[in-house]
Amino acid sequence: MVATIAPPAPARREGRISYMDKSLAEIAELVGGKVVGDAAVRITGVNGLKQAKPGDLTFLDNPRYQPLGETTRASAILTSPDMLPSARIPLIHVNDPRQAFAMVLKACEREQVRHPSGIHPTAILGQNVRLGNDVALGAYVCVGDDCTIGDGAVLYAGVYVGHSCKIGENTIINPNVSIREGVTVGARCIIHTGVALGSDGFGFVPIEGRQFKIPQVGNLIVGDDVEIGANSAVDRATFGTTVIGRGTKIDNLVQIGHNVQIGEDCVVSGMSGIAGSAVIGDHVTIAGQAGINGHIVVGDGVTVGGRAGVTKSIEPGKIVSGFPAIDHDADQRMQAGGRRVPELLRRVRTLERRIEELENRLHGQAADDC
Amino acid sequence: MVATIAPPAPARREGRISYMDKSLAEIAELVGGKVVGDAAVRITGVNGLKQAKPGDLTFLDNPRYQPLGETTRASAILTSPDMLPSARIPLIHVNDPRQAFAMVLKACEREQVRHPSGIHPTAILGQNVRLGNDVALGAYVCVGDDCTIGDGAVLYAGVYVGHSCKIGENTIINPNVSIREGVTVGARCIIHTGVALGSDGFGFVPIEGRQFKIPQVGNLIVGDDVEIGANSAVDRATFGTTVIGRGTKIDNLVQIGHNVQIGEDCVVSGMSGIAGSAVIGDHVTIAGQAGINGHIVVGDGVTVGGRAGVTKSIEPGKIVSGFPAIDHDADQRMQAGGRRVPELLRRVRTLERRIEELENRLHGQAADDC
Amino acid sequence: MVATIAPPAPARREGRISYMDKSLAEIAELVGGKVVGDAAVRITGVNGLKQAKPGDLTFLDNPRYQPLGETTRASAILTSPDMLPSARIPLIHVNDPRQAFAMVLKACEREQVRHPSGIHPTAILGQNVRLGNDVALGAYVCVGDDCTIGDGAVLYAGVYVGHSCKIGENTIINPNVSIREGVTVGARCIIHTGVALGSDGFGFVPIEGRQFKIPQVGNLIVGDDVEIGANSAVDRATFGTTVIGRGTKIDNLVQIGHNVQIGEDCVVSGMSGIAGSAVIGDHVTIAGQAGINGHIVVGDGVTVGGRAGVTKSIEPGKIVSGFPAIDHDADQRMQAGGRRVPELLRRVRTLERRIEELENRLHGQAADDC
Repeated sequence: MVATIAPPAPARREGRISYMDKSLAEIAELVGGKVVGDAAVRITGVNGLKQAKPGDLTFLDNPRYQPLGETTRASAILTSPDMLPSARIPLIHVNDPRQAFAMVLKACEREQVRHPSGIHPTAILGQNVRLGNDVALGAYVCVGDDCTIGDGAVLYAGVYVGHSCKIGENTIINPNVSIREGVTVGARCIIHTGVALGSDGFGFVPIEGRQFKIPQVGNLIVGDDVEIGANSAVDRATFGTTVIGRGTKIDNLVQIGHNVQIGEDCVVSGMSGIAGSAVIGDHVTIAGQAGINGHIVVGDGVTVGGRAGVTKSIEPGKIVSGFPAIDHDADQRMQAGGRRVPELLRRVRTLERRIEELENRLHGQAADDC
Repeated sequence: MVATIAPPAPARREGRISYMDKSLAEIAELVGGKVVGDAAVRITGVNGLKQAKPGDLTFLDNPRYQPLGETTRASAILTSPDMLPSARIPLIHVNDPRQAFAMVLKACEREQVRHPSGIHPTAILGQNVRLGNDVALGAYVCVGDDCTIGDGAVLYAGVYVGHSCKIGENTIINPNVSIREGVTVGARCIIHTGVALGSDGFGFVPIEGRQFKIPQVGNLIVGDDVEIGANSAVDRATFGTTVIGRGTKIDNLVQIGHNVQIGEDCVVSGMSGIAGSAVIGDHVTIAGQAGINGHIVVGDGVTVGGRAGVTKSIEPGKIVSGFPAIDHDADQRMQAGGRRVPELLRRVRTLERRIEELENRLHGQAADDC
Repeated sequence: MVATIAPPAPARREGRISYMDKSLAEIAELVGGKVVGDAAVRITGVNGLKQAKPGDLTFLDNPRYQPLGETTRASAILTSPDMLPSARIPLIHVNDPRQAFAMVLKACEREQVRHPSGIHPTAILGQNVRLGNDVALGAYVCVGDDCTIGDGAVLYAGVYVGHSCKIGENTIINPNVSIREGVTVGARCIIHTGVALGSDGFGFVPIEGRQFKIPQVGNLIVGDDVEIGANSAVDRATFGTTVIGRGTKIDNLVQIGHNVQIGEDCVVSGMSGIAGSAVIGDHVTIAGQAGINGHIVVGDGVTVGGRAGVTKSIEPGKIVSGFPAIDHDADQRMQAGGRRVPELLRRVRTLERRIEELENRLHGQAADDC
């Protein structure tokens, strides 16, 4: 049985899932580069030098990684003539490999998903909503009063946006996301299904054993180019603003507490949590299932290991792990130490026996001496 | 471009986000108190003595905290004449500071958010649904058969309520919350966006390597004044009832298993999990990312540290941390010990060398003696 | 006040929550068995030999568990004449107790919940959607173009299904679930409220400190008889396919990364996470709040303890715990060792004192000798 019910639905002009599929020649044309080697090689994906697999295009921009240019499993490399004049696999030569690679990534993205378009008749808008050009609102979307939705933004079915929100240009809000009142989301963001933005922070005043709610009247600002994974939750500030900096990428099921400040270009992996009022610098990497205490400062460029629990502020550039998190090398030594405790117990037992023997012998001597 | 589509929408009469903004004189009038000092000081928030910042009103009710009355950064203190006759900052004197402070908190809450009101024409109600006075149902809300929604309750857009549920008076259910059949939510609760109430417990019977589902036919009762954070999940009971006690506050992304019993006035921080059939007493505090084993009892007043894993029942009043969780002081000592293992290894190595020397010397003596 | 608004709603023909309630005689008839003992005993639930409570039916199929047949708290046992000829509680004798018990479980499930039926007028379907017989689509369901929904499948209110998806026969998708484009869900699955299926994997290429998105163009296949708990998230593959094998059961708030392969009949408890490209065998049990690193292999039949962090591949059949996870027995010894470090410190201090005394004495002797 084939059923096609419901009105003509502008919100479902999505296309098929297509892998990227281009010849190296086509990509060279796209980026204004020159193929060295077989221009007919077909490229179906993109990835880093280490992670790339056959079919992938990768790129080489940094002399440090030149050896990887020889060992990568990629099918082709985007690079510059001085970086890698030739190799066992085909190359595309350009002046600025980094910029060219970014162009390929963007093209690849455009190719794969065709989002809904137009305003679905069931979308509900409040008063004084400003919609940019080419905004798409899916079925059963609700947008509150006084919101501004930027050009090209896409809100999938079932998205809720409270009053007084701003959604930036070309941002994609996936189905069933809930954005509470007064939240700002920047341009080119991707918010995945089920995300909660701007929920109340977790703050109570205990009065004689009962918990009284501290009103959570602050807001939340999500910068440009931020991605937030499925079913993650980012709380609004108690007072003031919770901030996710430009370019920061957040994975699934991550919790960001009230008044947290996250810098730019950070990477926060799945199931990590950042407690209230923590300040995270730029270029910070937080691995999976880690936790960051409230009210501490994690400096620029810090790397927090998987499942680490950070209880104190961390200087910029440090790599920390363990719980409580310490310098990663010290943590490794401590862990190695921990594994040697059974051995230590045996060695101490032996020492005790040996010393007892010595004492007995000396005691014997002493007795003899008398 | 300004677009205002869709019918007059009773469900979007939300106002602007307003910080509290009152003079001390206004607050004194609200609570029936007397200002000591500058009555024109403006109050924009409320918080505890330690956490308060300039602009905040705080309160002092306990002789133990009198010194904090002098050091708090708050702009004013609600207190009683005998507790704090005067201070360097303005005071409001009342007979019962605690009660007065609770009145201010409530006023503050009323001021900041104006919820939807009325029944949106797109809300769908089943048969035999009893709606109290002043109930608000947002757009695309679904309420199943035989439900009762109390006076003043607010269900935001996209909320699903299965059949045979009860929602108490003045409870707020935020957007895209899913409440399965047969769940009871008390009065004055706040359920944040994306919460799952009454999902099936996780129970299976393995039969020759395959898992057969144990039907989850119990229910879930959430007491009065409970708050549950964004994207948390509370399972229904296998048989019987999962219970969240009155006044308990639960943060984001928390998992509560089937048949769990949580007492009153507990605080459960973000990303914590409580496994099936655990019993949690009253006034229990569970810090972030902690885990509580199934089928154990955590006594009244227990504090569970952040990232602790509680594997055994805990006596009332204890403070525990670590994994497996033990008495917090013992855990601290154990952690301190763990950090000293590399040092221990060095000291044992030295001891071994010294004892070998002694043995050699005594052996030499013994040889001499012969 | 009783309100019944909105059109006749085929999607709310759910019944009351009913416990199973059958006499032993009725159950014996259902499975073609013979009652030994009181056939009037009423059965209200089912459970394993150890977990069963009064009112439950349990089953005994394995000679190893014969002693439990005498101690179980169940009200009756489904077994075979040679396994348990008689007992202090009533029995049902059948040839194949396992198969008969599975029949009871299925009957029990049918009895308790009556799902929505029919296509709600507000459900929106894209072009070329194939609906099987007896499909139920709740209110405000959206199904994209080119989807296939199998016979008897139920999609509750607020479910979103992107284009090019397949949902198998008799699968139940609970409210507010989001299924992105190109996802396949097998037959007889249960997907709980708020689940995110097919979200983008978390993959970025860093270029001069900025993170560029790696397009996530793969898909997700969920096998038959899979259950996925509330608010869990399963990512689509970067390229290729993320796979959840037949019969695998996943609890609430679990994160499954891109390109993960999970085998058949696994059990993954609440708040666990499996990072990208990990391969999990068949019959693997992962306890709560555990984490599995990306790009590793966990063999068939492995058991991962609660809160374990698995950093390396694990051989089939192993039981591991701790972080980094090691053989469970070794982990227990290591933990026991860790608890003895304070004692070790004391013993080493004592040894140091004793050896110093010996050294002093020998030094004294040596001096005397001079």
